[in-house]
Amino acid sequence: MKEKKMRSMMHEFLVLGCVLLGILGNVSAGITSSFVRSEFPAVDMPLDHEVFAIPSGYNAPQQVHITQGDYDGKAVIIIWVTPSEPGPNIVKYGTSENKYDYTAQGSKVKNYTFYNYKSGFIHTCLVKDLEYDTKYYYEIGEGDSARSFWFKTPPKIDPNAYYKFGIIGDLGQTFNSLSTLEHYIESGAEAVLFVGDLSYSDEHEYSENGERWDSFGRFVERNLAYQPWLWIVGNHEVEYLPEINEVEPFKQYLYRYPTPYAASESSSPLWYAVRRASAHIIFLSSYSPYVKYTPQYEWLLAEFKKVDRKKTPWLFVLMHSPLYNSNSAHYMEAESMRVVFESWFVKYKVDLVLAGHVHAYERSPDYSAFREASYGHSTLEIMNKTHAFYHWNRNDDGKKVETDSFVLYNQYW
Amino acid sequence: MKEKKMRSMMHEFLVLGCVLLGILGNVSAGITSSFVRSEFPAVDMPLDHEVFAIPSGYNAPQQVHITQGDYDGKAVIIIWVTPSEPGPNIVKYGTSENKYDYTAQGSKVKNYTFYNYKSGFIHTCLVKDLEYDTKYYYEIGEGDSARSFWFKTPPKIDPNAYYKFGIIGDLGQTFNSLSTLEHYIESGAEAVLFVGDLSYSDEHEYSENGERWDSFGRFVERNLAYQPWLWIVGNHEVEYLPEINEVEPFKQYLYRYPTPYAASESSSPLWYAVRRASAHIIFLSSYSPYVKYTPQYEWLLAEFKKVDRKKTPWLFVLMHSPLYNSNSAHYMEAESMRVVFESWFVKYKVDLVLAGHVHAYERSPDYSAFREASYGHSTLEIMNKTHAFYHWNRNDDGKKVETDSFVLYNQYW
Repeated sequence: MKEKKMRSMMHEFLVLGCVLLGILGNVSAGITSSFVRSEFPAVDMPLDHEVFAIPSGYNAPQQVHITQGDYDGKAVIIIWVTPSEPGPNIVKYGTSENKYDYTAQGSKVKNYTFYNYKSGFIHTCLVKDLEYDTKYYYEIGEGDSARSFWFKTPPKIDPNAYYKFGIIGDLGQTFNSLSTLEHYIESGAEAVLFVGDLSYSDEHEYSENGERWDSFGRFVERNLAYQPWLWIVGNHEVEYLPEINEVEPFKQYLYRYPTPYAASESSSPLWYAVRRASAHIIFLSSYSPYVKYTPQYEWLLAEFKKVDRKKTPWLFVLMHSPLYNSNSAHYMEAESMRVVFESWFVKYKVDLVLAGHVHAYERSPDYSAFREASYGHSTLEIMNKTHAFYHWNRNDDGKKVETDSFVLYNQYW
Repeated sequence: MKEKKMRSMMHEFLVLGCVLLGILGNVSAGITSSFVRSEFPAVDMPLDHEVFAIPSGYNAPQQVHITQGDYDGKAVIIIWVTPSEPGPNIVKYGTSENKYDYTAQGSKVKNYTFYNYKSGFIHTCLVKDLEYDTKYYYEIGEGDSARSFWFKTPPKIDPNAYYKFGIIGDLGQTFNSLSTLEHYIESGAEAVLFVGDLSYSDEHEYSENGERWDSFGRFVERNLAYQPWLWIVGNHEVEYLPEINEVEPFKQYLYRYPTPYAASESSSPLWYAVRRASAHIIFLSSYSPYVKYTPQYEWLLAEFKKVDRKKTPWLFVLMHSPLYNSNSAHYMEAESMRVVFESWFVKYKVDLVLAGHVHAYERSPDYSAFREASYGHSTLEIMNKTHAFYHWNRNDDGKKVETDSFVLYNQYW
């Protein structure tokens, strides 16, 4: 096992380090849960596990995943991979099952190499001008290899729109990751705010690294082909590996997980913002420059000024490394970002700051309100412009157990 | 005047914010000089000033500047610009005047656009396998347009090697910049450690921005064609300008000011290290990622482990934004880097941390030992493995006045 692997033992599970600023409602403060994981570290599912199965048919599209494609939720980006040849680069879609009235053209098909791995053909297709609050069916591929899915657009931007988000981070592809994903799918949430660390491919041997990006894509397709996840980078996306001459940060991630960054006038896919239902959501990179004079800093300052709490009363910020963290793992690792952005988050009355990285759940109104060394997922259910419900659901021997919840009062209203 | 210009009023002068860690010798502590600049902010020299003169002859090479080209000082990189066509892409050189026994081939000639500016043809030529402590003559261009210069290689790496560095930052192209450069040239120092902010071209109108990079290159050629400057980026190199669709950080800088980064196994020209005489010198970027997991962090950790104080007893670090700064301008702006690297600088017994940015001189053994709101340059004269002399020389109505000096005792020996 490589030294790099040993260094980050706490790998591959769904985890959430959740950081909240401000007044968080009527929950008692300062709880450390007595729960102890039965399996730690978690074990990766083997590559021949059914969750990684390759779809049948020659050159069938695989690893289908979608994300929001614009600023306001009327577009999606659909990404998929074809293994043998580029194949058709279009998405057929419409509002009736098996009847596709529209076609969208993908952007230029890409592939890349990483060490001795050569990727499949990566398709990225923007489907825009959609109606709000509508179910769309779509098909990619052709003939026997064609595959069809659906997604639902969010309600129009409205201060009192109801919407239920899921929150997941540090997912990986272990047996526990599967529990998390299955529990999440049952939650009824409609989109995931993903706080970084997707495939953990970098914890595998170099020769398996690229393949583990593919297997992860096939594993999460069961949900990601049907609803948008909105992602940011974690440390496992950096993949700075001078020993194999792979030194371009986020190389594999950037090929595979695009974002609608230009729609929020960002200059990089690594930081961006969207509006969805009643929420304005800001996505940051913990591993890109963020000090004064740098693009992320200048962009964030401009983006905060664009927030209109009358239209989107809820303001959330995502980053990978938590500003507050009372666990020993990764303790104070984000001080470097905290000293730059903390005062802005207070000034602009951010309702929730969501982070990952620590592989344990923690909520912090004063210092730490509730923490638990567990894996699982959260949901955030926005009821209206003043109230939202937050739930933490841990994985407990494969079962979903809700162990923390609170009412969130809007910081602005 | 644009908002961006107003924001950074303190522009365009030679300035040094010098930060020292540890015991700094027998100087009294806590002095604020009573000196007041007669001209502040300084005034840019007009483009028709003789210091910006274009050399005669069709397509004559201009903006000639050199930097160290390898890890140990046996190579230089020579950079120049031809205005009309690429022209010859070679350097002729040798150890006798007007007699060039050797030829080095430049790498691919480049040019670029920036807003409505189109650059000249930028040549970059590595001249390697030089002898130590030797004067070399070189010629670029051809026919009537040929131009010749010389440089001196440093002594071989040796713990007791004598060497005199200059230290300059925030230079710009004002009348005061000219004073600084003239004073520096008289100092007898053999190479400059440049702490960022070169041309201040970004303080000009967009339409003049590119041209001001050219004029700066012609202005500093009087020294930079004859001795290496070792540079880092400052905030004025970032040039993130979404309003004119120029958002690639450091774009113009990277075309014009290469570094020997690969020689120190860095993956970016923005951070690197060299050894020169008895010094190991580390060059950092204040505006690139530097937290755990990022390339600069991982690289720096590896580089510190390569330092051999028996071979190079002196260890210096350069960055643009100072970790300690008691001036109100830019106060605590580098906290974000301080929380990441400060403990390493102590652990690895760095002798000097040199920074710029503040447009005032300050030295800080405890908190602030000496500060003065002046422009000027410093020299660092390494006597042997235990002692070095540091001098701050301000510009005082065009005269050079030495106002701070101290003996530096090596932190390791």
